Amino acid sequence: MDVALRRGWSLKTAFPFMISRRTLSLFWRCGAGKPWPPAPTGRRGAAAPHRHAHSGASEGTERSPSAAPERRPFSRLSEVDLAFFRETLPGGAIIDPDLLEAHNVDWLKSVRGHGELLLRPQTTAQVSEILRYCNDRNLAVNPQGGNTGLVGGSVPVYDEIILSTALLNNILTFDPVSGILTCQAGCVLEGLSGYLEEQDFIMPLDLGAKGSCHIGGNVATNAGGLRLLRYGSLRGTVLGLEVVLADGRVLDCLSTLRKDNTGYDLKQLFIGSEGTLGVITAVSVLCPRKPSAVHVAFLGCQTFEQLLGTFKLCKGMLGEILSAFEFLDAACMGLLNTHLKLPNPITDCPFYIVIETSGSNSAHDEEKLHSFLEEAMTSSLVTDGTVASDDTKVKALWSMRERVTEALTHDGYTYKYDVSLPVEGLYQLVTATRDHLGSRAKNVVGYGHVGDGNLHLNVTSSGPDPSLQGAIEPFVYGWTAGVRGSVSAEHGLGLKKRNYIYYSKPRPAVALMGHIKTLMDPRGILNPYKTLPDDLD
Amino acid sequence: MDVALRRGWSLKTAFPFMISRRTLSLFWRCGAGKPWPPAPTGRRGAAAPHRHAHSGASEGTERSPSAAPERRPFSRLSEVDLAFFRETLPGGAIIDPDLLEAHNVDWLKSVRGHGELLLRPQTTAQVSEILRYCNDRNLAVNPQGGNTGLVGGSVPVYDEIILSTALLNNILTFDPVSGILTCQAGCVLEGLSGYLEEQDFIMPLDLGAKGSCHIGGNVATNAGGLRLLRYGSLRGTVLGLEVVLADGRVLDCLSTLRKDNTGYDLKQLFIGSEGTLGVITAVSVLCPRKPSAVHVAFLGCQTFEQLLGTFKLCKGMLGEILSAFEFLDAACMGLLNTHLKLPNPITDCPFYIVIETSGSNSAHDEEKLHSFLEEAMTSSLVTDGTVASDDTKVKALWSMRERVTEALTHDGYTYKYDVSLPVEGLYQLVTATRDHLGSRAKNVVGYGHVGDGNLHLNVTSSGPDPSLQGAIEPFVYGWTAGVRGSVSAEHGLGLKKRNYIYYSKPRPAVALMGHIKTLMDPRGILNPYKTLPDDLD
Repeated sequence: MDVALRRGWSLKTAFPFMISRRTLSLFWRCGAGKPWPPAPTGRRGAAAPHRHAHSGASEGTERSPSAAPERRPFSRLSEVDLAFFRETLPGGAIIDPDLLEAHNVDWLKSVRGHGELLLRPQTTAQVSEILRYCNDRNLAVNPQGGNTGLVGGSVPVYDEIILSTALLNNILTFDPVSGILTCQAGCVLEGLSGYLEEQDFIMPLDLGAKGSCHIGGNVATNAGGLRLLRYGSLRGTVLGLEVVLADGRVLDCLSTLRKDNTGYDLKQLFIGSEGTLGVITAVSVLCPRKPSAVHVAFLGCQTFEQLLGTFKLCKGMLGEILSAFEFLDAACMGLLNTHLKLPNPITDCPFYIVIETSGSNSAHDEEKLHSFLEEAMTSSLVTDGTVASDDTKVKALWSMRERVTEALTHDGYTYKYDVSLPVEGLYQLVTATRDHLGSRAKNVVGYGHVGDGNLHLNVTSSGPDPSLQGAIEPFVYGWTAGVRGSVSAEHGLGLKKRNYIYYSKPRPAVALMGHIKTLMDPRGILNPYKTLPDDLD
Repeated sequence: MDVALRRGWSLKTAFPFMISRRTLSLFWRCGAGKPWPPAPTGRRGAAAPHRHAHSGASEGTERSPSAAPERRPFSRLSEVDLAFFRETLPGGAIIDPDLLEAHNVDWLKSVRGHGELLLRPQTTAQVSEILRYCNDRNLAVNPQGGNTGLVGGSVPVYDEIILSTALLNNILTFDPVSGILTCQAGCVLEGLSGYLEEQDFIMPLDLGAKGSCHIGGNVATNAGGLRLLRYGSLRGTVLGLEVVLADGRVLDCLSTLRKDNTGYDLKQLFIGSEGTLGVITAVSVLCPRKPSAVHVAFLGCQTFEQLLGTFKLCKGMLGEILSAFEFLDAACMGLLNTHLKLPNPITDCPFYIVIETSGSNSAHDEEKLHSFLEEAMTSSLVTDGTVASDDTKVKALWSMRERVTEALTHDGYTYKYDVSLPVEGLYQLVTATRDHLGSRAKNVVGYGHVGDGNLHLNVTSSGPDPSLQGAIEPFVYGWTAGVRGSVSAEHGLGLKKRNYIYYSKPRPAVALMGHIKTLMDPRGILNPYKTLPDDLD
């Protein structure tokens, strides 16, 4: 059988479960003779160009708003300081430059700091002692989780002390009645997912970097990811936090309650503040039950309007079982083919959709999915498609979406934009940027979370190119602001985007953020040069 | 046919859809000869005892922590002030005591203020002018929505100016692709629900006071309600707010984006802060699609352990279609029977459950519900039950849960406690309180949101009884704190509970809340005497 779900094909042929639900085996389509899917390698396997300069710092041209500002007058690390940290953290105060290397450079290799000390506390009390000391001594601190951030927020800019959550990695409690998990901040997302799945639960968030990212870092970044459409943002699913403030005080808001209206919800301040207001040491999170049935459909559309039509149809017909609606464009598919040797599982189309359903009754879900696909085909919204329910094939289809980031790192230097836009105009920005840049860019690609109105726009070039960056940045941010979008949907602002905050937030709001920063970290030792713009200083 | 779903009955008899799904008509059980359901009257129809003293202020006994503190040295309203407000709000500055009456007394008639001026602005600019003036003149302000709060947070304590959102009642935009609604703060929840339902959407929250409460007040209180189990809290579904700060500055955070990680999420400060940090003037909220099928099951259990067993079973078997799991005890049923003449739709049991499912495919939902009920019956978790899918009958079954509050107001003076507890021990507090109070209480009843771990514990007496209150309050709060619960799950702290905050929040957290209040409202004009404890002063 060649292409199921292609226009003109009989749905009865394509969907065995129309005939017999009991003997259902959702099919898997391969291109003729192509070995697909290949084994996934995961995001950590990516290689990328290496830069020693700070992100976007141009040489000989006008200073970029994403370049690092001057070093602030923090104290320099002394021998006395080192002796204190060695005593406080026996074996956990590291100065070996080889061991520090991976902690000073971000995953994209676009930002490099010069931290001379890495601290690996194992307890909240140790984090408290560290911060109390650093605050007294005016030593700057860079809190660091799995260092998978994309905006230069997770590495030092100068010589900040790197405070890693890697050894704060214990699961504390899990209640299988309520589904509430409490754990230390350094637990790796994939590890938590594995632990929960054994107990028939899942984490409410999932993202490409799950093999490395820490839950504390996820919360500090307010990570979105692939399940937000279904389970909502961390602002709803995180029930409690334990945080160490800049002066070492421990704020115990580690509630395990779904509802708590006793005073202001302080934990919200730390969600998405990128380590600038406090260091998250423990998290409690509400976890959904593991769905007993998961299906993934990979579909092709001829136009973005058809893709949007498919989205509307899907929301109506899949309703409560829809758990993801993602897309990538033909340019992304080209990069997957070229750099990762991932063949297209369907015929070539301008746009591809990944739809995931998760439910408690496989037969019901298949019936809903079938009705939806039948309608999408007969109304000509979708040109071609394939469906999977087997775990390996589900993962392989997902990798077409998850590994786009990795494919991009092989295409050259990548300028990354993560914007929220009204969903109707989501792809117009890609087209407009392509037209605007013309031949100056190697590739301009678009992918992302349609269901959340979140576009990942990426522009590649053969190497760092300040003039190209200069051509993109006012343009993309201005375009986004013009439709009241957000210049950072889920990645945060970090170092690279801090000065672009005004494209999405009015001055009085940013000023208030500055007052809150001053209130909570008067000496500014926590993750300096990040999140807030330079002109607050 | 008598009692379907009663133990020993054939499920085939009870569930017609086992035989023919096409001809399904979920049955409705009435007691022999009893006219049930009676017409609902809604919460506003309730009558309650009237008190002139401040809540809990005891006469001749030790001062209650819920009593009002001394009036702070705010300015008194002058003729010049009145002239300003009359000019700013032509026709919207009201001093007629008869018109002010309903705005000075809370719904429970347990707190009475002495506000002499009611302001009814129609625009954000007017709210801004009012607050700028009040801040300059040091005039205290009580922001007021639908005045349906239960903790004395929505009325003046002394002579605060009442700033009503009633005329800020326009729907601004609705996007049927994304489901995002923006509206002014004074829109009544039921009005918004009606508007959305015409467009095939629903509000993500629903509560008994929906006919009167304002969306701005809902957000300011972080209202929970009946749909939280399914759609999560307002912290996730509220996407944006427009807020006027104490000094009149307008903070425009009225984003209509599902994701926005540009700086700190300031809107979270105002969600649940009960009007003490700013006045919410507009809201954007993410609305779910209207489910095409809704079923409600009203079930009876012999023990709370069986009720919990039913909850666990239900979460597994109903999965993504479960939209509510509520309970009431036999004492609540007695009050519904006695005061509202609502007969029990099933046989008498110690505990009753209201389960709601919402989904996109009625046949699938019925099949899931049937399998669940069959299992609940055969495993003896449930003793009796009835199921409804017809809209009128669904509403009538729901009223058995929603009208408990109203029934209580007819039983005498009511001491209300709204606590979050670990779900396993949810009912132990009711039993413990009943044992503790013995004959001093008229009735001790428990009901609430099992799915959210949220118990409403209510104690009635023939009239206000400071010694009874004294016997309840340290006991209930201490018991709650002992299991790391919350002394206010969804009602907020308001005036009545402000001094009990330490039962649920550590001192450093409360101190930080005080600093935030001072930062945002340095003169303390916004809703004074509420939310934060007296000992911050």
